[in-house]
Amino acid sequence: MTRILFAARPETWAAYRDCLPAALTDAGVTAEIATLAEAPDPATVDWIVYAPNAGLTDFTAYTRLKGVLNLWAGVEDVEGNRTLTVPLTRMVDGDLTQGMVEWVTGHVLRHHLGMDAQIKGTGWQPDFPPLARDRPVAVLGLGELGAACATALAGLGFPVTGWARTVKDIAGVRSVCGPEGLRDALSQAQITVLLTPLTRTTENLMTAERLGWMPPGAVLINPGRGALIDDDALLAALDGHLGHATLDVFRVEPLPRAHPFWAHPRVTVTPHIASTTRPASAARVIAENIRRGQAGEPLLHVVDRREALA
Amino acid sequence: MTRILFAARPETWAAYRDCLPAALTDAGVTAEIATLAEAPDPATVDWIVYAPNAGLTDFTAYTRLKGVLNLWAGVEDVEGNRTLTVPLTRMVDGDLTQGMVEWVTGHVLRHHLGMDAQIKGTGWQPDFPPLARDRPVAVLGLGELGAACATALAGLGFPVTGWARTVKDIAGVRSVCGPEGLRDALSQAQITVLLTPLTRTTENLMTAERLGWMPPGAVLINPGRGALIDDDALLAALDGHLGHATLDVFRVEPLPRAHPFWAHPRVTVTPHIASTTRPASAARVIAENIRRGQAGEPLLHVVDRREALA
Repeated sequence: MTRILFAARPETWAAYRDCLPAALTDAGVTAEIATLAEAPDPATVDWIVYAPNAGLTDFTAYTRLKGVLNLWAGVEDVEGNRTLTVPLTRMVDGDLTQGMVEWVTGHVLRHHLGMDAQIKGTGWQPDFPPLARDRPVAVLGLGELGAACATALAGLGFPVTGWARTVKDIAGVRSVCGPEGLRDALSQAQITVLLTPLTRTTENLMTAERLGWMPPGAVLINPGRGALIDDDALLAALDGHLGHATLDVFRVEPLPRAHPFWAHPRVTVTPHIASTTRPASAARVIAENIRRGQAGEPLLHVVDRREALA
Repeated sequence: MTRILFAARPETWAAYRDCLPAALTDAGVTAEIATLAEAPDPATVDWIVYAPNAGLTDFTAYTRLKGVLNLWAGVEDVEGNRTLTVPLTRMVDGDLTQGMVEWVTGHVLRHHLGMDAQIKGTGWQPDFPPLARDRPVAVLGLGELGAACATALAGLGFPVTGWARTVKDIAGVRSVCGPEGLRDALSQAQITVLLTPLTRTTENLMTAERLGWMPPGAVLINPGRGALIDDDALLAALDGHLGHATLDVFRVEPLPRAHPFWAHPRVTVTPHIASTTRPASAARVIAENIRRGQAGEPLLHVVDRREALA
């Protein structure tokens, strides 16, 4: 009998209580699932299905633990945890990726087409945008999400430059890396999308200097993590040369009512909806990894924690 | 020497006066171009490059004419002209198609993602849309533009049903035809895009009855022609079960300020910007057809006028 601790908030458990057992059964795993509230003996737990916001931060007592399976794509709140000494996996879920592609493509096209003026109904002022091929876009971060978005945007005709730690081979995407690559990507893109993971290196990635590299009228879209941006520097840039910022993630969520982003005419706030882990498909990913672990096969989507633990 | 009459408004000539001669030269055609204002002798004109809004409606005196090359994709204002007895071609321009694909994809995603509420800044109300695969879309009209839009939407994951006069073979698109096919397409689509040509058969295509087939909350997007819709029936449907209409084309343009579409909260008016003939690429299409005609080769994009002349 495999013992699983579901360490997430009660509302998350409500979303998984049916589909996770079903996915485990489909994967051929016989398991017993306990929640944090049921407080199972830590020494009996084989696997922890984990959300970083549930309060479990000390893994020391979980002496039999084989792995921690994060329910989120972002692992910045757990990867540096030194009490965690077993493999950590991130959520890589096709539905989460697809949702992100739809949101990013939609908002890039919104800015490309200049939709906001029409949605606000400002009258008959025909103004043709350039075609996508004349609208350079940058995607910062070429992981699962960034690579999928870059590919979709290139497919629509946008010239896409992707920036990542290393050069990637993605069809139709110009790949750059390093500080020079970042300057290259930002300085030619009329629309920049932030999809880097949040790490020590990428926190405050968008400083005043780097925002300054973006061309006049450029648009910043952030469906990644709030702390990738220096908020004050962004506000200053929006009072200057930047055209717009569409922000889905923030340092504090929900974004406090008093935050100047809400009132700024060049900011669109969306409530962390760019994409979400969808329980039915995420449960299948978790179940497959537990099956693999129990069968002695390598886990999928293991996080490289070297930088976080350095 | 080939003689061409450029029969379009002066502002259109301003856009073509450089690129059309260049495109003809590139195509190896030696030609002399006159404008309507220059009033060349009709009996000397070989080809007319034509916009239906320039005032030329009687082709009788053009006794040497080999063809009329429409600058627009839509030919409804000229195809029924009985004084025109030589081949009529429509504009099929890759850039026009690409522009339409971008506009349609952008507005379908806008409605799919529920963007308007966020753009208007209504606060932190997370509400995840379904994925594209759970959002059926219908495209009415599978000509050059409709087929390209249907293909792009299918590529983003939407289940797309296309309706046309005959069944078409388009990868990833369910093709239907006839009255039953129209009911099928409209009754299951949450978003319907109108891209049929305007003909006697399709005028008032969207009657009260057919609007009634659309499901509650459905969205109608019209980048085709204004007269495809019964305006009063649409307004009544928007006061009832329809969710929204995004309209780019109208029976009278610019849309008169007093028209109820402007004030209706469920209507977005865009000023006929969904796509446009872009002079540089359109000039190449015109030049290629004149080269073909002069060389005795068949013209491209000849309009089938049988219905219009019946």
